[in-house]
Amino acid sequence: MPASKMRDTHIALAHGNGGRMMRELIEQIFAPALANPTLDTHADAVALPRIAGELMVTTDGFTVQPLEFPGGDIGSLAVHGTVNDLAVAGATPLYLTLNAFIEEGFEIACLRRLAESIGRAARACGVAVVAGDTKVVGRGECDGVYFATTGIGARRQDAQLGTRHIRPGDVVLVSGPVGDHGADVMLAREEFGMRGDLRSDAASVLPYAQALLSINGLRFMRDPTRGGLATVLNDIVNATGHGVRVCEAAIPIRDQVQSVCELLGYDPLYLACEGQLVAVVAATAADEAVEVLRRLAPECARIGRVDESSTRVVLETAFGGERVLDELEDDPLPRIC
Amino acid sequence: MPASKMRDTHIALAHGNGGRMMRELIEQIFAPALANPTLDTHADAVALPRIAGELMVTTDGFTVQPLEFPGGDIGSLAVHGTVNDLAVAGATPLYLTLNAFIEEGFEIACLRRLAESIGRAARACGVAVVAGDTKVVGRGECDGVYFATTGIGARRQDAQLGTRHIRPGDVVLVSGPVGDHGADVMLAREEFGMRGDLRSDAASVLPYAQALLSINGLRFMRDPTRGGLATVLNDIVNATGHGVRVCEAAIPIRDQVQSVCELLGYDPLYLACEGQLVAVVAATAADEAVEVLRRLAPECARIGRVDESSTRVVLETAFGGERVLDELEDDPLPRIC
Repeated sequence: MPASKMRDTHIALAHGNGGRMMRELIEQIFAPALANPTLDTHADAVALPRIAGELMVTTDGFTVQPLEFPGGDIGSLAVHGTVNDLAVAGATPLYLTLNAFIEEGFEIACLRRLAESIGRAARACGVAVVAGDTKVVGRGECDGVYFATTGIGARRQDAQLGTRHIRPGDVVLVSGPVGDHGADVMLAREEFGMRGDLRSDAASVLPYAQALLSINGLRFMRDPTRGGLATVLNDIVNATGHGVRVCEAAIPIRDQVQSVCELLGYDPLYLACEGQLVAVVAATAADEAVEVLRRLAPECARIGRVDESSTRVVLETAFGGERVLDELEDDPLPRIC
Repeated sequence: MPASKMRDTHIALAHGNGGRMMRELIEQIFAPALANPTLDTHADAVALPRIAGELMVTTDGFTVQPLEFPGGDIGSLAVHGTVNDLAVAGATPLYLTLNAFIEEGFEIACLRRLAESIGRAARACGVAVVAGDTKVVGRGECDGVYFATTGIGARRQDAQLGTRHIRPGDVVLVSGPVGDHGADVMLAREEFGMRGDLRSDAASVLPYAQALLSINGLRFMRDPTRGGLATVLNDIVNATGHGVRVCEAAIPIRDQVQSVCELLGYDPLYLACEGQLVAVVAATAADEAVEVLRRLAPECARIGRVDESSTRVVLETAFGGERVLDELEDDPLPRIC
């Protein structure tokens, strides 16, 4: 049966009803953008080729507002976010599933751009979107589009990572400047008229993670998304019972991000990154780790250490003082990812 | 660090910020409800035990309104929907991931009930929820809660299923009365004051699917959700190029569902089921398939056959006439699943 050409310009409730319009939406928007040999948009479930190594799985939802921002969009974010969760767990990402929740009246041209962005990001990361589902909800029951992605990967045999491996004296590294994504989305959202060249760092951290996996003494990796660097450091404290001391002067932050934060009253240490990773390595492996990482991430830095004498995250300020970085309480920037 | 007791009664934006309140939400609502040995709510990705057999994956989003209805809720539906997609593909469901999109102001007691319903349904189906993610969006940016689940299973070696195996003359079966879920949700939504004992059929079809897999001559199975029985039959026509003829008198429909549909102007053949399956079997295997299925599903029925002489779904009416069952155009009942 020849597919009729999709002529609608905006999403209707009938694009979610299981009938003709839903079939056209999937066949004409999602299937071509995501095309790969494993994807079968007509099947209830798809069979995956055999995976060598231990299977790892993760899932993430995406509600960022605005949907498109300098440096990325909710589509590329939905790929990178899940790829990054697998990468920092020591896995090679292989397959994604995709859920879309779409608001009635959403512009189909925008949906096409987002689907194409998902396809591009997935190909660049070497992952295939193998299954998907779309739901359409009424006007005012969703804000444009939300995505959820589940990632399946294979753990590298040499990856023995986790907070349980962290020891006092271990060194904390970050792959590059923090807060770019948060500051960028904040500006894109608020239209402060001070854009400059600030862009989200939204990207895959897979190359960084894979380079660090060669380091004997790598303990733990995480990508600092919601809640930023300070939240990852608090996660380490909560999981290990040890404190973390970081040096303010050593933490890379772009001048522009710093300025935006000072102006608007945000702390860049709590702003989301979407293309950085935090790593904890044994003190004896720190120099090698920085050297390996610097080849790919020239702005990476050694920012602190795990500290037995405290059970907090302590920031040594540029003025010689100390400040505790507590867990986030209120939400400074909802829908950042 | 001792977890502080969650005292909030409603979801705040800060329950999605990556900080303390999100940690409490996950540790105190989701983790206990979903508890299983593989789930690790602190990890970026979890490692799965080795899976024997070909890996199969599927994903589904859930937006049903109301969230709780006679016979189920959006939580149990999110488990059964994905379990059923794996089951009809000939796989044994093993693992689920769960995404929750939650509206600011949502009642935490209801979220707890839904999480517990997910846990109960998962345990009953023999699947473990191994990874999850929660996002909180502002008031009016979501309608209560939406879920997405991705399912991972292992294909049984004897399962060679798919529309490509369907041949003219094959017989179409259904496991029981159609339209229960759609009619039930419609009533729960509209408060027509005519509830009676109508309940959603929301349930796992895994036992039916596994019983039918023993039949030599089983070609294809599908659970008729959005768009109902008529949509599955149209999917068969679209995929095979052959017509399907079904006999109205043979299709099981509860009197109550029929009455509700007549009163409100719906066609039960297009109403969602959430606990039935449609199977296509070789004509020579049809008697055996019905016999096997009837032990588990006493109301199962042989409803029609694949028909080379047409390329439509044709209903032979109770009055000796014929009616074409076309693909759905508009959406009679949005947010049915």
